Amino acid sequence: MRIIVDAMGGDNAPIEIVKGCVEAVNEYGIKLLLIGKIDIIQVELKKYNYPLGDIEILDAQDIITNDDEPANAIRRKKDSSMVVGLKALAEGLGDGFISAGSTGALLAGGLFIVKRIPGIDRAALTSVYPTTKGLSLLVDAGANVDCKPEYLSQFGVMGSVYMEKVMKKTNPTVGLVNIGTEEEKGNQLVKEAYKMLKNSNLNFIGNIEGRTIPLGEADVILADGFVGNVILKLTEGMAISIFSHLKEAFMSNTQSKLGAMLLKPKLKEMKKIMDYREIGGAPLLGTRMPIVKAHGSSDSLAFKNGIRQLISFIEKEVIKTITDSLGEQMENQEDIEE
Amino acid sequence: MRIIVDAMGGDNAPIEIVKGCVEAVNEYGIKLLLIGKIDIIQVELKKYNYPLGDIEILDAQDIITNDDEPANAIRRKKDSSMVVGLKALAEGLGDGFISAGSTGALLAGGLFIVKRIPGIDRAALTSVYPTTKGLSLLVDAGANVDCKPEYLSQFGVMGSVYMEKVMKKTNPTVGLVNIGTEEEKGNQLVKEAYKMLKNSNLNFIGNIEGRTIPLGEADVILADGFVGNVILKLTEGMAISIFSHLKEAFMSNTQSKLGAMLLKPKLKEMKKIMDYREIGGAPLLGTRMPIVKAHGSSDSLAFKNGIRQLISFIEKEVIKTITDSLGEQMENQEDIEE
Repeated sequence: MRIIVDAMGGDNAPIEIVKGCVEAVNEYGIKLLLIGKIDIIQVELKKYNYPLGDIEILDAQDIITNDDEPANAIRRKKDSSMVVGLKALAEGLGDGFISAGSTGALLAGGLFIVKRIPGIDRAALTSVYPTTKGLSLLVDAGANVDCKPEYLSQFGVMGSVYMEKVMKKTNPTVGLVNIGTEEEKGNQLVKEAYKMLKNSNLNFIGNIEGRTIPLGEADVILADGFVGNVILKLTEGMAISIFSHLKEAFMSNTQSKLGAMLLKPKLKEMKKIMDYREIGGAPLLGTRMPIVKAHGSSDSLAFKNGIRQLISFIEKEVIKTITDSLGEQMENQEDIEE
Repeated sequence: MRIIVDAMGGDNAPIEIVKGCVEAVNEYGIKLLLIGKIDIIQVELKKYNYPLGDIEILDAQDIITNDDEPANAIRRKKDSSMVVGLKALAEGLGDGFISAGSTGALLAGGLFIVKRIPGIDRAALTSVYPTTKGLSLLVDAGANVDCKPEYLSQFGVMGSVYMEKVMKKTNPTVGLVNIGTEEEKGNQLVKEAYKMLKNSNLNFIGNIEGRTIPLGEADVILADGFVGNVILKLTEGMAISIFSHLKEAFMSNTQSKLGAMLLKPKLKEMKKIMDYREIGGAPLLGTRMPIVKAHGSSDSLAFKNGIRQLISFIEKEVIKTITDSLGEQMENQEDIEE
């Protein structure tokens, strides 16, 4: 297996990215193709020990930043690490691609260069979402702000396959984010999506409300990209806000400082559960080849874990299974129509 | 001032509602008209001391529950405490109405019986939203799942007036919930709403993301009823989920149990900040007369605080100010068009 890496994407590139790559090669026994400024990457690589043939470099002198308008950047920055990397993926130089760079550009590039899976209308961003029960997958976390019902239904298929194959959930539950649990609730989009999902082969558990998302009610949390993005960011904001309240409470007097000291080990464990670094990356679902988005502020550990996710994404043949499932869905749909 | 009270709405009606009413009469020196089963209410009232003429009862033998379909219930349950109360409000028997009963029915009844403010296309549910900075107001918290841009702009006017008059925020900031801060971000709805808000007299601070909502970035948090409802319920769910994680951490061993004991007073304070009972009620914005929705699980304290909110809603002439502001907005809009 060979994985293509955007060595220049993210806040800590290339230092932490290269470090994470070396750790992944040593730990997982895979081969990597690093894309980026060859001179800088070589300097970084010299710091470490690894089987020399296992990491190669493909030079790309430009970088797409978060300030670039995504679609424009993909069209114009032809020598950027992201474009060169995605082209290498499309041309078969590797089995998957990972980047901690601009999410929008990765999505645009995935669509323009790698193309969509036949039968999938839109590619979705996902986010691995920590709940009190474990990990769920939020689809779409921000790619498609104006959705049609069939997109949501397709997101359901893709999310379900990913949760089953990569996250090892048997028969994952799929929930549709809505403002009430009853079938007739919601806006036009979710009402129609509900009908499609009900008639699908998915383990559809119906509508889920904001209140039960963090409690892990569904393994796959379905929403359009607007609602999904609000969910993702509000979850982050709530965690920040509550922990800042806690910190203030802990530091307010000697008694509470002592209490906080005693609780420190447990609070650390708790923060770890919610830590993006342990999760690594979020798959982009809907492109013909596996692509993983690593967190923008990834350090080497987070990036290594992102590569681990990508390895599963490839090994478990997620994309083939999605294609097969779509075929079944369509047959199923035809049966109903007949 | 006379306030009309749905004495039969909510999980703890009529016992806690009546108790809260008596406390409000004694504390705020107002008059109340309680609507509901007269015999039961009389039994409850006999438990307390209060100036006898200050609480009157209007009999209504039926009750609208959360299981009733809202619009149907308003049409058919003509002898319900909610319908009788709203009719009394429309007929001028009181200055405002409060209910802890079905939110949907209160909204439907408000629209059908009390009617909308001229110039307002839709009434909105609101929610007083606790942030790290204080209290914000979320509009719309769930009434209008399919919105037009002008509704959002009108919600902005109403929310802004309420925050200024009742919540005493000078020149309250108005933020539009979106997936990014840049003007061109988002779905069709918010892109158009952005333009309207930018040209308004409001203190519009632009788009706000999910991440900064709990940090109190905007005093008025604008969203369509679908997104607003997800925000409201997810916020609740995140608080529940994090506190359940904390509780588990605190109880896990002797050391952490001791730490938790030392922190208890501070954690209690923190929970109080986030407690709906202290806030009381959420105004319904857009009807011709003031209506407040008290939390369904209100106890007497929460209900009394809800009445306190309604008193400000009435005293500060929120509805008159909204009507005046709408006039100014329209003149302003015409100036731009000329």
